[in-house]
Amino acid sequence: MLGVCTYTGGGVRHDIDPDAISDHVRKKGTLVWVDVVDPTEDDLATIQQEFSLHPLAMEDATKHGQRPKLDKYPTHAFVVAYSASLSEVDLFIGDGWLVSVRGRDPKGEPWSVDVARRRFERSGPEEATAGFLLYLILDALVDGYFDRTDAAEDRLEGIEDAIFGEEESERRMQQDLYELRRDLVTFRRRVQPLREVISSLLRQEVEWIDPLALLHLQDVYDHVLRAIDQLDSQRELLNNAVDAHLAIVSNRMNQVMKKMTSWGAILLGSTLVAGIYGMNFADMPELHWRFGYPYAIGLMVAITIALYIYFRRRDWL
Amino acid sequence: MLGVCTYTGGGVRHDIDPDAISDHVRKKGTLVWVDVVDPTEDDLATIQQEFSLHPLAMEDATKHGQRPKLDKYPTHAFVVAYSASLSEVDLFIGDGWLVSVRGRDPKGEPWSVDVARRRFERSGPEEATAGFLLYLILDALVDGYFDRTDAAEDRLEGIEDAIFGEEESERRMQQDLYELRRDLVTFRRRVQPLREVISSLLRQEVEWIDPLALLHLQDVYDHVLRAIDQLDSQRELLNNAVDAHLAIVSNRMNQVMKKMTSWGAILLGSTLVAGIYGMNFADMPELHWRFGYPYAIGLMVAITIALYIYFRRRDWL
Amino acid sequence: MLGVCTYTGGGVRHDIDPDAISDHVRKKGTLVWVDVVDPTEDDLATIQQEFSLHPLAMEDATKHGQRPKLDKYPTHAFVVAYSASLSEVDLFIGDGWLVSVRGRDPKGEPWSVDVARRRFERSGPEEATAGFLLYLILDALVDGYFDRTDAAEDRLEGIEDAIFGEEESERRMQQDLYELRRDLVTFRRRVQPLREVISSLLRQEVEWIDPLALLHLQDVYDHVLRAIDQLDSQRELLNNAVDAHLAIVSNRMNQVMKKMTSWGAILLGSTLVAGIYGMNFADMPELHWRFGYPYAIGLMVAITIALYIYFRRRDWL
Amino acid sequence: MLGVCTYTGGGVRHDIDPDAISDHVRKKGTLVWVDVVDPTEDDLATIQQEFSLHPLAMEDATKHGQRPKLDKYPTHAFVVAYSASLSEVDLFIGDGWLVSVRGRDPKGEPWSVDVARRRFERSGPEEATAGFLLYLILDALVDGYFDRTDAAEDRLEGIEDAIFGEEESERRMQQDLYELRRDLVTFRRRVQPLREVISSLLRQEVEWIDPLALLHLQDVYDHVLRAIDQLDSQRELLNNAVDAHLAIVSNRMNQVMKKMTSWGAILLGSTLVAGIYGMNFADMPELHWRFGYPYAIGLMVAITIALYIYFRRRDWL
Amino acid sequence: MLGVCTYTGGGVRHDIDPDAISDHVRKKGTLVWVDVVDPTEDDLATIQQEFSLHPLAMEDATKHGQRPKLDKYPTHAFVVAYSASLSEVDLFIGDGWLVSVRGRDPKGEPWSVDVARRRFERSGPEEATAGFLLYLILDALVDGYFDRTDAAEDRLEGIEDAIFGEEESERRMQQDLYELRRDLVTFRRRVQPLREVISSLLRQEVEWIDPLALLHLQDVYDHVLRAIDQLDSQRELLNNAVDAHLAIVSNRMNQVMKKMTSWGAILLGSTLVAGIYGMNFADMPELHWRFGYPYAIGLMVAITIALYIYFRRRDWL
Repeated sequence: MLGVCTYTGGGVRHDIDPDAISDHVRKKGTLVWVDVVDPTEDDLATIQQEFSLHPLAMEDATKHGQRPKLDKYPTHAFVVAYSASLSEVDLFIGDGWLVSVRGRDPKGEPWSVDVARRRFERSGPEEATAGFLLYLILDALVDGYFDRTDAAEDRLEGIEDAIFGEEESERRMQQDLYELRRDLVTFRRRVQPLREVISSLLRQEVEWIDPLALLHLQDVYDHVLRAIDQLDSQRELLNNAVDAHLAIVSNRMNQVMKKMTSWGAILLGSTLVAGIYGMNFADMPELHWRFGYPYAIGLMVAITIALYIYFRRRDWL
Repeated sequence: MLGVCTYTGGGVRHDIDPDAISDHVRKKGTLVWVDVVDPTEDDLATIQQEFSLHPLAMEDATKHGQRPKLDKYPTHAFVVAYSASLSEVDLFIGDGWLVSVRGRDPKGEPWSVDVARRRFERSGPEEATAGFLLYLILDALVDGYFDRTDAAEDRLEGIEDAIFGEEESERRMQQDLYELRRDLVTFRRRVQPLREVISSLLRQEVEWIDPLALLHLQDVYDHVLRAIDQLDSQRELLNNAVDAHLAIVSNRMNQVMKKMTSWGAILLGSTLVAGIYGMNFADMPELHWRFGYPYAIGLMVAITIALYIYFRRRDWL
Repeated sequence: MLGVCTYTGGGVRHDIDPDAISDHVRKKGTLVWVDVVDPTEDDLATIQQEFSLHPLAMEDATKHGQRPKLDKYPTHAFVVAYSASLSEVDLFIGDGWLVSVRGRDPKGEPWSVDVARRRFERSGPEEATAGFLLYLILDALVDGYFDRTDAAEDRLEGIEDAIFGEEESERRMQQDLYELRRDLVTFRRRVQPLREVISSLLRQEVEWIDPLALLHLQDVYDHVLRAIDQLDSQRELLNNAVDAHLAIVSNRMNQVMKKMTSWGAILLGSTLVAGIYGMNFADMPELHWRFGYPYAIGLMVAITIALYIYFRRRDWL
Repeated sequence: MLGVCTYTGGGVRHDIDPDAISDHVRKKGTLVWVDVVDPTEDDLATIQQEFSLHPLAMEDATKHGQRPKLDKYPTHAFVVAYSASLSEVDLFIGDGWLVSVRGRDPKGEPWSVDVARRRFERSGPEEATAGFLLYLILDALVDGYFDRTDAAEDRLEGIEDAIFGEEESERRMQQDLYELRRDLVTFRRRVQPLREVISSLLRQEVEWIDPLALLHLQDVYDHVLRAIDQLDSQRELLNNAVDAHLAIVSNRMNQVMKKMTSWGAILLGSTLVAGIYGMNFADMPELHWRFGYPYAIGLMVAITIALYIYFRRRDWL
Repeated sequence: MLGVCTYTGGGVRHDIDPDAISDHVRKKGTLVWVDVVDPTEDDLATIQQEFSLHPLAMEDATKHGQRPKLDKYPTHAFVVAYSASLSEVDLFIGDGWLVSVRGRDPKGEPWSVDVARRRFERSGPEEATAGFLLYLILDALVDGYFDRTDAAEDRLEGIEDAIFGEEESERRMQQDLYELRRDLVTFRRRVQPLREVISSLLRQEVEWIDPLALLHLQDVYDHVLRAIDQLDSQRELLNNAVDAHLAIVSNRMNQVMKKMTSWGAILLGSTLVAGIYGMNFADMPELHWRFGYPYAIGLMVAITIALYIYFRRRDWL
C-alpha cells in the first residue's frame, strides 16, 4: 500500500521497499517520498517509526476532517490541505523526506498525485528537495480549485438565466441557488485557512524548505488569494441574485393580481348586465324590443371589449 | 464535596483528605488536583486559603456567567471555559497544582471530568504536570463541541428538508429555524473567546505550563478554530436557508393566487351563462328550443372544461 | 454643591470645605475626592483652579454628549464614561486626587455614586489611592450595565412570544421590536468605546493608577467585554427575530388568501345553482318537480358541505 | 482675491499685499496666512512660487473631489478636509505659514473661515503658530458636522413617525428614507478618512505642528470619532427602520386582504339569497307568502349583520 | 510586434531593433522600454532572455486572469494591474528597464499606453528612470477608473429614477440593477488588490524605483483609495436602492389590492340590486311602480357613486 521512492537529483525515481526506508532517510542529497492512500495500522506504525512523527500529528492524519493548518514539531512539520473535491491531503515534511497521506473525497475518490509527480520528475531539479516537492503538490491542489470556481461560475450563469428568463420551475431553481451557496460556503471553509498556511511557510517558519521552493510557493500563495477572491465575488453575486429574484417574484405576484382584477371586472360587468335584464319589473321597455336580446348580448360584448382595451392600455392584462 | 488527589508521576492517584492539602502542595514532583462541583462556602474558603487565590478570581468562580477568559495573577492563573452544554468550568492553575470548579448547565447537570481524568491516569506521564492536566481538561471540553456542531448540522438538514419539501407546519418550522439560530449565537459566544484564551496560553503567558503541554495545547487551539469555522458556516447556511424559505413562501403565494384567479374565472363563466338565460327578454329563441336547457348546461360544462384546460396549460392550476 | 472629602487610609472620610481643598491636595498619603452634580460656573472655576485642569477637558465636562474616552494631560487624565441609564460621568484623576462630575440621564436623574463610595469606605484600603477609587466608580458603572442587558433579554423574550404566539396587535409589536433595537444601538455606542478606555488604563498609560487598582481594573475590563458580547448577541437575535417575523407574516397572508379562495368558491358554487334554476327555459323539468325547490336548496347545501370538506382536507380552511 | 495676513503673536492681524508675501515668509515669530476662494491661475502661480509647493499638491488643490488626506512633502504638508455641506477645504502647512484654499459646496457656497479666524485672534496666543491655526480651522470644520448629524437625527425621527403613524404618502416617505441613507453614505465618505488624517497629525508625522496644537488636535480627533459613531448609529437605525417598514407594509396588506374577503363574503351572501328567490320553481311557498319580499330583504340584512359581527370579532374588519 | 525604445534623459525617444536590446540594457543613464500587445512565443523568449525574467513571472504574463499583485525577484519586480475596461497590464521593472505586456479587455481591445508615453516624453525628466515611467503608466491606468465610476454613478441615477418614477418595465430595471451590481463586484475585484500593490511599492520594497517616482506614486495611491471609496459608496447605495424598490413593489401591490377590493364591492353592490329585483315574489310593489325600472337603475348608479366617493376618500381608488 505504501508507495516509497527516492530521488537523488535529475528527477530519476527509484522505487524502494517500505522496509528499506531507514537505509535512505537522512542520506545527504537523497529525497525520500512516501505516498499512501488509506493507510493501514501497519503502514502508519511504519511511517511513524521511520520518521519519528509526533503522535498528535499522526492522530490528525488518521482522523479526517481537520482544518487546513500547519503544525510545527521539532523534527518535522505537518500540513493539512484539501483538494477541490474536498479530499483531505496530509503532508509531513522533514529534512530530506516527505510523507503524503491522501484521504478520499465525499464520492470516495482519492486525490491523484500523478500531476505533481510527473512535473517533479520532468523538471528534474539538480537538487531533489522536499520543499520543491511540497510546492508541486500544493500547486497541483490549488490549480484544481479553479476548475471548481469556473464550474460555479457556469452554475451561477444558469441561475441568472433562470431568474431573468421565463417563469420555470421555481422550486427547482431555488434549490439550485441554495445548493450553490452551500457549496461555496463549504469550499471556502477549506480554502480560506490555506492562505494562512502558505503565508506561514513563506515567512520561513519551516526550516526544511529551500529558497527556490519558497520563491515558487509565492506563486501558490497568489493563486490561493485569487481563488478566495473568486469565491467572495461569487458569494456576493449570489446574494445579489437572491435579491433580484425576490423582487421579481414580488413583481410577478403584482402582475397576477392585476390580471385577476381585470378579468374579475370584465366578467362581473357582463354578469351585471344579465342581472339587470333578469329583473322582473313590469315595465322594462328593452325586454320587448325586437332586438332586445341581441342588444343585451351586444352590450356584454361591448363592455368586455371596452374593459379589455382599457386594462390592456394600463398594462394590467 | 471537595475531591482532592495527588499524582507523583506514572499516573497513579492518591486520594487525600481536603485538610491535608497543605502537606502536599508545592512539593517537588507532586501534582495536587482539587476538583469540586457546587462548592460550599467552606470549600471555597479552604481552597482560597490553601492556594492563596486572588479574591477577584474567587468572586468570578462563585458568580457564574463569566466570559471565557484567562486572568493572570502573581502566583496563579485563572481560566474560564464552557462545556458544549454550556456549563461553566473554572480552572485555577499554579505551580504544581490545579483547581477545577465545575458549574451546572441549564439542565442542572455538571460537566463530567471523568474522561480527562482517565486519559491523564492512562497516559501516565513521567512527570505529572499541572499544564498537561489542564491540556487534557480543555481537550475534553473542546472535543465535546463537535457533538454539538454535528447535532446542529442534523437539525439544519431537517430544516432544509422542510423548506424544500412538501408544505407542512410553517410555524413549527419557523420556530425550529429561529431556535437553531439562537442556539448558534449562544454557543458561539461561549466558544469564540476561548480562542483568545488558548492563544494567550500558547504565547507562554502562563509560566506554569510546561513545553510538552504547550505542544499539545496547539492541538486544542486547532480544534477551537475548527469549531468556530463550523459555527460560522452553519450561521451562513442558516441565513441562506432563511432567504430560500422567504422566496419559496412568496412563490407559494403566487401559486395560490393563480389557483384562486383560475377557479374564480371558471365559476364566474358559468354564472354568466346562467345570468344570460335568466334575462326576461320577450324574444329569446334558445328559451324555446327543445334542448335549450341541456344546451345551457352543456355550455357551462364546455366553458368549465375549456377554461380548466387553458389554465392548466399555463400552469395556473 | 461641591462635595469634597479626604481619605487618609482605612476608609475614614473627612468632609472638608471646598475652599480648603488646596490645604489637602498633593499631601502625601491623602486622597482628595471632589464630587459634584450639575456644577455651577463657580464650582467649575474652583475645581479648575485647585487642580489646574486643562481647559479642553473642562469644556468637555461642561458640554455633555462626549464619547467615552481617555484624554491624557501632563498633570492629570480625563475619563468620560456612561451609566446604564445613559447619564454621563466625567472623571478627572491626578496624583492623589479625583474629581467626579456627574451629569443627568434623559429622565433627569443623576447617577448615584453611593455604591462606589460605600465600597471604598468599607474595604478601607491601607493606602487611599485615586486609582482604587477610580476602579470602584467604573466597576459600579459597569455592574449597572447588566441590569440593562437583562431587561433587554426579557423584552426580547416578550417579542419572541409575540412573534411565535397568537396573532396580536402587529403594529404594537413592531414598534416594540424597533425600540428595542434602537435602545441596543444607543446603549452600545456608550459601552463599546469604554473598552478602549479601560484597555488604555491597563496599558499603564496613566501614571497615577497604582498596580493594585490596575489588577482590579482587569476585572472591569472583563465585564465590559461581557456586556459588549451580550449586546452583540442580542442584536443578532433581534435580527433573527425580524427574519422570522417577516416569514410568519408572509405565511399568514398565504393562509388568509387560501381562506378567501375557499369561501369564495363555496359561495359561488351555490350562487351558480341559484342562477341555473333562475333561467327562463320553457322546458326545465326540475322546475315542475314536486320537491324541486327543496332539491335545489339541498344541492346548494351539498355543494357547500362537499367543498368545505375538500378545502378542510387540503388545509385551506 | 488672495487674502494675505500675518500674525506676530497676541492675535493682532496685519493684512499685507499678496506681492509682499516673500518679505514675511520664514521670518522668525511671524505666521503668514494666505486664504483664497476660487483661486485664479495667477493666484495659484503666486502661491506655488512663494511657498515652493509641490506640483502634485497644487494639482489636487485645483482639481476638486479629492479624498480627505494628508500628504507630506519635504518642505510642507497638504491636508484635504470637507465641511459639513461638503465643500472641500485644502490646507498647505509649512514652517511658519499656512495656505487655505476653499472650494464651494454643491449649492455654490464656500465654507466660511470666519469662526476660526475670530477664535484665533481672540485667543491671541503668545506665539502665533501655523499648527494652532490649523487646529482651529479643523475644529471649526468638524464642529459643523454635528449640526448635520443633528439634522439627520430629526429627519430620522420624522421617518419613524411616518412608519409607525397613520398610513400616508408611501412613495414620499420611501424617497425620504432613501435620500437620508444616501446623504449618510455621501457624508460618511467625507468624514471617515479624516480620522486617519488627524491620527497621522497626532503621531507627529508633520513637524511644523507644535506640541500645544497637538494637544488640542486630540480634541478634534475625539470629535471626528464621535461624528463617525453617530453616522454609524444612524445607519443602523435606518436599516432597522427599513426592516420595520417592510414588515408593516406586509402586515397592512394582510389587513386589506382580510377586509376584502369579509366584504366579499357579506355581499355574496346577500346575492345568494336574491339568487335563490329568483329561481323559477313552480312550487316555492315563500314567493307567495304575504310578507315574502320583506322576509327576503330581512334575511339579507340579517346575513349582513351576522357576518359583519363575526368578522368584526375576528378582527378582520 | 515588440516595440522597443530607449530614453537617455530629456524625454527623447530612440526606437531600436528588438535584436539590439542587449546593447542598451544596463547602460548607465539609459532607460530601455519594451512594450508589446499579444506577444508571440518568440517575443516572450526574446524578452525573457534579454532581461533574465523569472519563469514564474513569464508564466503569469502568458496566462491571463492574474490577481493585481507585486512579485519581487532578485533582479526585477513583476506588477499586474488592470485597466478600467478590465484588460490586464503586466509590468516587469528592473534596473534601468521596463517591460509592459498588455492584454485585451473582454471586448478584444488592448489598453492604450499612449497617454503615459506622451506624458513621459513631454515631462522630459532629466533622468529617465524606470520608476517614473512605471508611475506614469499606473497613473494613466488609475485615472481611467474614474470614467468608469462616473458612468456607474449615471446608471445608478437612472435606476433611482426608475424606482421612484412611474411604473415601467420592471424586469428590465431589475436586470439593470443586477448588472450594475455585478459590474461593481467584478471591477472592485480588480481595483481592491491594487491598493496593496502600490502600498508595497511605497514601502520601498522594490529598489529600482527612485524617490521622485515614489513621491508621485503616493498620488496614485490616493487615487486608488478614492476609487475604492466610490465603489463602496455605490455598492451601499445600490443596496439601499434594492431595499427601497422592494418596499415600493410591496406597496404597489397593496394599492392594486385596494383597487381590486373597491371595484369588486361596487360591482357586487349593483349586482345585488339586480338580483333583488330578479326575485320572483308574488308581491313586490316596486316591480309595478311606474318608474320602477328607472328607479332600480338609479339605485345602482347611486350605490356606484356613493361607494366610489367612499373609496376615493379613503384613498383606495
